[in-house]
Amino acid sequence: MTELFDRHRPLLDAALQALRDRGFWSPFPEIPSGKFYGETARQEGEAAFQALRGQAFDLPGHPNQALRGAEISPHGGALGIRYPSADAAELIAAAGRAQGALAEAGPEARVGVCLEALVRLNRMSFLMGHATMHTTGQAFAMAFQAGGPHAQDRGLEAVAMAWDEMTRFAPQARWEKPQGKAAPIVLEKYWSIVPAGLSLAIGCNTFPTWNSYAGIFASLATGNPVIVKPHPGAILPLALTVRVLRDVLAEAGLPADSVLLAVDEAGAEITRDLAMNPAVRLIDYTGSNAFGGWLRAHATQARIFTEEAGVNTVTIAGTDDFVGLCANLAFSLALYSGQMCTAPQNIYVPEGGIDTDQGHKSFDEVGRALAAAIDDLLSDPARGAGICGAIANPATLERVEQVRGLGRVLRASAPLGQGRTATPLLLALRDGDPICEQECFGPIAFVIAVRDADTALERATDLARCKGAITAALYDRDEARIERAARAFAAAGVNLSVNLTGNIYVNQSAAFSDFHVTGANPAGNASLTDTAFVASRFRRAMWRRPVAA
Amino acid sequence: MTELFDRHRPLLDAALQALRDRGFWSPFPEIPSGKFYGETARQEGEAAFQALRGQAFDLPGHPNQALRGAEISPHGGALGIRYPSADAAELIAAAGRAQGALAEAGPEARVGVCLEALVRLNRMSFLMGHATMHTTGQAFAMAFQAGGPHAQDRGLEAVAMAWDEMTRFAPQARWEKPQGKAAPIVLEKYWSIVPAGLSLAIGCNTFPTWNSYAGIFASLATGNPVIVKPHPGAILPLALTVRVLRDVLAEAGLPADSVLLAVDEAGAEITRDLAMNPAVRLIDYTGSNAFGGWLRAHATQARIFTEEAGVNTVTIAGTDDFVGLCANLAFSLALYSGQMCTAPQNIYVPEGGIDTDQGHKSFDEVGRALAAAIDDLLSDPARGAGICGAIANPATLERVEQVRGLGRVLRASAPLGQGRTATPLLLALRDGDPICEQECFGPIAFVIAVRDADTALERATDLARCKGAITAALYDRDEARIERAARAFAAAGVNLSVNLTGNIYVNQSAAFSDFHVTGANPAGNASLTDTAFVASRFRRAMWRRPVAA
Repeated sequence: MTELFDRHRPLLDAALQALRDRGFWSPFPEIPSGKFYGETARQEGEAAFQALRGQAFDLPGHPNQALRGAEISPHGGALGIRYPSADAAELIAAAGRAQGALAEAGPEARVGVCLEALVRLNRMSFLMGHATMHTTGQAFAMAFQAGGPHAQDRGLEAVAMAWDEMTRFAPQARWEKPQGKAAPIVLEKYWSIVPAGLSLAIGCNTFPTWNSYAGIFASLATGNPVIVKPHPGAILPLALTVRVLRDVLAEAGLPADSVLLAVDEAGAEITRDLAMNPAVRLIDYTGSNAFGGWLRAHATQARIFTEEAGVNTVTIAGTDDFVGLCANLAFSLALYSGQMCTAPQNIYVPEGGIDTDQGHKSFDEVGRALAAAIDDLLSDPARGAGICGAIANPATLERVEQVRGLGRVLRASAPLGQGRTATPLLLALRDGDPICEQECFGPIAFVIAVRDADTALERATDLARCKGAITAALYDRDEARIERAARAFAAAGVNLSVNLTGNIYVNQSAAFSDFHVTGANPAGNASLTDTAFVASRFRRAMWRRPVAA
Repeated sequence: MTELFDRHRPLLDAALQALRDRGFWSPFPEIPSGKFYGETARQEGEAAFQALRGQAFDLPGHPNQALRGAEISPHGGALGIRYPSADAAELIAAAGRAQGALAEAGPEARVGVCLEALVRLNRMSFLMGHATMHTTGQAFAMAFQAGGPHAQDRGLEAVAMAWDEMTRFAPQARWEKPQGKAAPIVLEKYWSIVPAGLSLAIGCNTFPTWNSYAGIFASLATGNPVIVKPHPGAILPLALTVRVLRDVLAEAGLPADSVLLAVDEAGAEITRDLAMNPAVRLIDYTGSNAFGGWLRAHATQARIFTEEAGVNTVTIAGTDDFVGLCANLAFSLALYSGQMCTAPQNIYVPEGGIDTDQGHKSFDEVGRALAAAIDDLLSDPARGAGICGAIANPATLERVEQVRGLGRVLRASAPLGQGRTATPLLLALRDGDPICEQECFGPIAFVIAVRDADTALERATDLARCKGAITAALYDRDEARIERAARAFAAAGVNLSVNLTGNIYVNQSAAFSDFHVTGANPAGNASLTDTAFVASRFRRAMWRRPVAA
């Protein structure tokens, strides 16, 4: 049972070290190149994706009351893949039957399965890239990274944290209590890991694997059967994941039903039935604050880990590299057309303008320069499509339409390339405009005139506290204010990036170093992957008895 | 600010090592002896207690709208101590004013304060013993231990866990991402600890310090101001604790209002107002399942850590030491008249009797031997009073009256010594009697005839799963069944003690080794002190920026 564990022990040890050090580390190459993945990987990945289209998806032994699934690529075309599906009761029953054996298997066997599955998922990153691209609308390069190696990193991180926590204390002990001159009292004690129960992972449309792997792998490693409930629009990446996990589980002699797929269709979701089932003790959820609130109110039997929404801000107080600032922000706004929980929305600029290496820039000049930087970035259509990708949800396009009349247009949104697409809409707004206080998910950003930089920081941190925020950015030359801002954003529970230029963006969150979401404001209560994310997925029970003297 | 931390660093390091090893360890002597506490400590402790009686309790600078308090010793006599008190709004406001400075102080300063306070509390263990005795009804020896060193152990354990968790990851890192032949991207990153918010500790009548120290110290160490809400019947031990903490905070230059006392009177409790305040983000609660349920339904803004109630069981399947078994169980039942969350209630015995070193014993013989062992233990009145103590709550005496007619009396309850007292009531019941499925808190135990030992284990584990249980005991000679039982009780989330005889009892839970409550059944969701107990009391926020190449 521990052969897989032994095989992957060096990987686990390296991950544990990386977690502590928080420097750059990843075992999964992020570059979609034959050099790392084998010269035929690219072609094979695409061929494997094409072979899945229009077919029934094979999940041997999985509950199957009906074939369901109606995914349509945001880049164009129905996928035509039909997945085995079952109602909540049957899925819960199947997971319940797997529960005992999965718990008894113990940490080494489960962690071994998780590590082997991640390594296999990494090998099929080209297929995952296509599956992610055609469900989320991401362009291929991003889909490869976010759907493949970066998601695998987050999975590995969760497995390592779970292992670290399960082995934090001695599994057995000799407890010897002195009794003065009499013989000591001696007990032997043995602890075991008691999983919390069934686990439900509710995926999102835009990052089906990246946002779900941490919860899936943390729950599985700690012994909780996982029911994976994909967004009806982004099933394939998680179905592939479930298949790999079920294969590895079965090969390791564990119940394949320790991981199940809960496919439903838009308008007939079974999420609520699953979430409220008393056997479900853990829920990982990525999505709207509204449904997050529903879960908290109704799934009271479960520990709920969420990533919800917020309003991310940029404060521009000054810069030593105005061109670099504009180019960097342009990319952050255009990447996947702003459909990232980490993408900036509110850009605060002092109404009197800012000092830069290019001299003073007025508020309008900053707005125009940002718009021009976006135009420039997307001027080559192929490159533009490769950055923006397509729009996952038609409602996002409608939102762009609704918002465009609410401010002075600095840059209009426009289609780009094939499928459902939209480049960033950039509006100039006055401080206090109510629309700034709402999350406008998608390619929408506001350049907001504020009295001064300190006012900007106040707006940004207040908003984080009230509405939530996952990222914040600051451009500034004033060291004292940078220090103040770092403290203020920390108190508001937001990770802050300062003076980013070049090829590193505020949207990016690297596993093993950046904790994604702090859990300290309304944008979510879970942080990927801190100890709290894994520690309450299991408990310890002991038995003890006297040792004969 | 870190002088206290430096001074107590060896204590912290020893506690951290003990936590990992889970062997016997404590820096706080449990024996109320001048040898450990100084030859004058006993007299000084009692004198200090007597000096507090009938006076206004001094808490310099504490909010004080009115003096309140009406404690009456279960051993007899009103304490007559009046404490400064304020309504929920004023306490929340005062805690809120302390919040910023406490967060900014950082882990070392806060942990230093906690360690110094524990060391001072230890020095005043004789006073704490008297304060605990005359609020809980415990006999002095137990009150000294449970109210003093054992509670201090649980506090220290929580501080050590909090420190371990706050320092688990690097506080800063250089993140260097290779870029092929180009220069690497280099960021510097800094993390800070973000406390969750205000913390509320709701104490109980029977173990005011032991059950509250873990939550108070875990919250304070992680930067959350704590409002300590004692049971109206057991204020003094927590008021003394609050005073020590406020003194040490002030000496360390931190706001004294980081720890506040919320005194109210029976029938006019302010617990609900405090619990539902949006600023309260952490609640530690010891008490009934009913109020635990109320908190979960209403204090939805807070993370709630509970120890509630359950039905603890003993399964007697056989023994090699029948006399030792009876004497051991007799003590467990008599100790503090069963007013412990760890005291056994349901004692399952096969209807056909058991095999022992004294030959076969019928069901009735086991029941009679247990009753006789209790009589024997309590035959000397002074010794009996020293074990049973007094009854904290008049409702417990009423319960003994109500229950006595529900089964065949094996041993009647009777008063003993001074004050409100009652020795154990022991009833014989048939399997399936509905009263066995209820917690009957106090000196009440049932000897229940079941078909066989396996049926007993089934009843005990089912009950733990449905109603909760904190302890279980098994007496057995069958190694295979012991192993099976260990697995079954672990799956039901109960710690199991096997074949205890001599001076170690199922009720005892030792800090640094035994996790108290597993959190895996309805008897509570918190485990003292595992990682989950501390990890969600704070979050991490980062700021990062490029390093000049």
